[in-house]
Amino acid sequence: MNTLQSIGYPIYFNDTLPELVNFIQQGNYSRFFILTDENTGKHCLPLIQAQVEKMDNFDIIEINAGEESKNIDFCVGVWKMLIDFGADRQSLLINLGGGVISDLGGFAASTYKRGIDFVHVPTTLLSQVDASVGGKTGIDLENIKNIIGTFTQPKAVFIEHAFLNTLPARQILSGLAEMLKHGLIADAGYWNKLKFSDLQNPSAELVHHSVAIKNKVVIEDPHEKGIRKSLNFGHTIGHAVETYSLMNDDNPLTHGEAIAIGMICESKLSVMKTGLKDDELNEIVDIIGGLYPAYEIDRPCYKTLYNIMLKDKKNQNGKINCSLLTKIGECRIDNVCTEEELYASLAYYSSL
Amino acid sequence: MNTLQSIGYPIYFNDTLPELVNFIQQGNYSRFFILTDENTGKHCLPLIQAQVEKMDNFDIIEINAGEESKNIDFCVGVWKMLIDFGADRQSLLINLGGGVISDLGGFAASTYKRGIDFVHVPTTLLSQVDASVGGKTGIDLENIKNIIGTFTQPKAVFIEHAFLNTLPARQILSGLAEMLKHGLIADAGYWNKLKFSDLQNPSAELVHHSVAIKNKVVIEDPHEKGIRKSLNFGHTIGHAVETYSLMNDDNPLTHGEAIAIGMICESKLSVMKTGLKDDELNEIVDIIGGLYPAYEIDRPCYKTLYNIMLKDKKNQNGKINCSLLTKIGECRIDNVCTEEELYASLAYYSSL
Ligand SMILES: NC(=O)c1ccc[n+]([C@@H]2O[C@H](COP(=O)([O-])OP(=O)(O)OC[C@H]3O[C@@H](n4cnc5c(N)ncnc54)[C@H](O)[C@@H]3O)[C@@H](O)[C@H]2O)c1
Ligand SMILES: NC(=O)c1ccc[n+]([C@@H]2O[C@H](COP(=O)([O-])OP(=O)(O)OC[C@H]3O[C@@H](n4cnc5c(N)ncnc54)[C@H](O)[C@@H]3O)[C@@H](O)[C@H]2O)c1
Ligand SMILES: [Zn+2]
Ligand SMILES: [Zn+2]
Repeated sequence: MNTLQSIGYPIYFNDTLPELVNFIQQGNYSRFFILTDENTGKHCLPLIQAQVEKMDNFDIIEINAGEESKNIDFCVGVWKMLIDFGADRQSLLINLGGGVISDLGGFAASTYKRGIDFVHVPTTLLSQVDASVGGKTGIDLENIKNIIGTFTQPKAVFIEHAFLNTLPARQILSGLAEMLKHGLIADAGYWNKLKFSDLQNPSAELVHHSVAIKNKVVIEDPHEKGIRKSLNFGHTIGHAVETYSLMNDDNPLTHGEAIAIGMICESKLSVMKTGLKDDELNEIVDIIGGLYPAYEIDRPCYKTLYNIMLKDKKNQNGKINCSLLTKIGECRIDNVCTEEELYASLAYYSSL
Repeated sequence: MNTLQSIGYPIYFNDTLPELVNFIQQGNYSRFFILTDENTGKHCLPLIQAQVEKMDNFDIIEINAGEESKNIDFCVGVWKMLIDFGADRQSLLINLGGGVISDLGGFAASTYKRGIDFVHVPTTLLSQVDASVGGKTGIDLENIKNIIGTFTQPKAVFIEHAFLNTLPARQILSGLAEMLKHGLIADAGYWNKLKFSDLQNPSAELVHHSVAIKNKVVIEDPHEKGIRKSLNFGHTIGHAVETYSLMNDDNPLTHGEAIAIGMICESKLSVMKTGLKDDELNEIVDIIGGLYPAYEIDRPCYKTLYNIMLKDKKNQNGKINCSLLTKIGECRIDNVCTEEELYASLAYYSSL
């Protein structure tokens, strides 16, 4: 599998940990910091430590696992640790973990001393196929996802399939939602391939294919002025459902579980607005519905979800914007959806 | 006085408030936010309000005056106000105030929804000749100045001399220190002109000259890899003295007062290390000493100051780096100074 070239940095596949060691040794860095959470500190850090001879100038910064850590308090905590450890401008931050680690670590690094270098070593399927590529960093504030952040590219990304061995099945499914999205918005052939694959254990080849799709899109449109918005398919409604679940559920939905719901709703909207065929909708519902548990969304929630959408940074001037499918493998951006249309799509999901 | 072109944005002089109104009307902005502090809200905002016909889509965000506000708590406050006011990606933030407002506002804007547009309307002499030009944004953390921030350029800068009418004399002197610095590091002719000017009331022409010097340097080296470091003359020691004073004094030094001390110390270092002549040092001490009050720095403080310098983001690998003069009007960057040399320069200052 080829190394991919992204916006000024390489994305490595295959046996990537020796590649990481190489990068560390060849770079002109004074100090190294590894950001982990409780789980990646336990499951993933040892794989790196096994590769590096001596780690005299390595310091570990560990945060709690989960989306609840992706906020300004933990970010200040990371900044303070960097200060206390004496991180200078020649330091490198290695983000070892899922999307929470890469988003938070990327933001902390891009603002520490007006920006130090960082690399991502994504350890969840979701962060491998999505969060680690494209240069978006971010934290949540006031229950709004990624409302604060920067566009800053990492210096390299190391995608190591071996990390997925310890990843819980539910987290695999979370990342899978983005892979399905990649097929739906950009590559019908890939979608068909996915349909007949072992989706509980996506192969390294499928991961590579997904990254290649995402990478192509972000290279074309780094700052999301146009085509990159296609990656938001399923995310207008999905993000709102995710936020809602985070605020209300004891065991909240994963990102992918929420996006799966969003993709079903937005496929319905695609039938209503952008010409997706009914049998394509049924195929999508079949595949996604067979993979993800149903989630109850009562009619009284609709207004709450709508208000969350209004605060989403994708939306402007009080208008809700969706990226919708014209057919499987093709996406059209900037479709304004009315409150009624959005409610109809939520009702469709609940009727299944 | 000419409009200057900076890194992708104009710096307006002369009658600039109509220019600002023009910018506001021609831009494709959905909403406008003006960031002020108590003083600029009182003294400067009315001058803008007098120019704008109706300000339906304007919201004011006011923070406390002073360096103590340049921290993450106030930044979170600004972010939350933007959220609550419903600021979308098409919003413009107008930073109306001194360096605290432009640094904090620039940082808040550059990270809100991964970056919204902002302009600076600097109202102190310091922010007119220095802080508003060059794209550095920042906040303080753990008593370290500007340790968190980004490089993000404003969309325009409007330098209006009229604002200085209400500025206290002590704040004029604070900005003057940077103007003297511009002469010392880059333009002996300008230094000589300053010597014979009314320095309590610097003219609009002198302000323009200073901005032109700073602008030339930052255009050449936006990310401070080389020549831009010359602007740090006086700041290695000056920043440490400023931080020390902020932590210990009831009525702390202004930035310029601290930099004035730093310039005397670093001129002494320049004699010791980079060939500045003794009579040039005496001339510098004469001018600066005649303008700024003496500040007591006891020998027991030296170590404290040194430790502050070690945490300064300009310094790496435990080495203290100074930009020093080779002669009046010329600067050499990257001079490593030992603890003893730094102490000798502090002792020199105290001996005056
Ligand atoms: N920047 C982007 O472009 C982008 C794109 C998509 C998603 N995201 C963000 O990513 C986040 C979600 O990412 P995520 O699902 O990876 O979340 P996550 O980082 O919280 O990881 C999920 C869970 O898996 C654990 N884990 C990680 N690697 C493991 C491993 N190898 N073995 C065992 N456990 C492991 C983590 O500790 C965590 O409990 C969200 O905050 C989302 O906003 C960002
Ligand atoms: N970004 C950069 O490149 C850069 C460069 C130099 C300094 N700075 C930063 O700038 C800050 C210092 O700037 P400053 O001295 O302007 O501080 P400031 O913003 O605190 O202003 C000084 C005081 O003057 C008041 N004031 C402002 N305009 C006024 C007016 N027109 N009339 C009456 N009162 C007025 C303010 O309320 C404040 O009390 C520091 O934080 C420093 O780090 C940044
Ligand atoms: Zn997603
Ligand atoms: Zn200064």
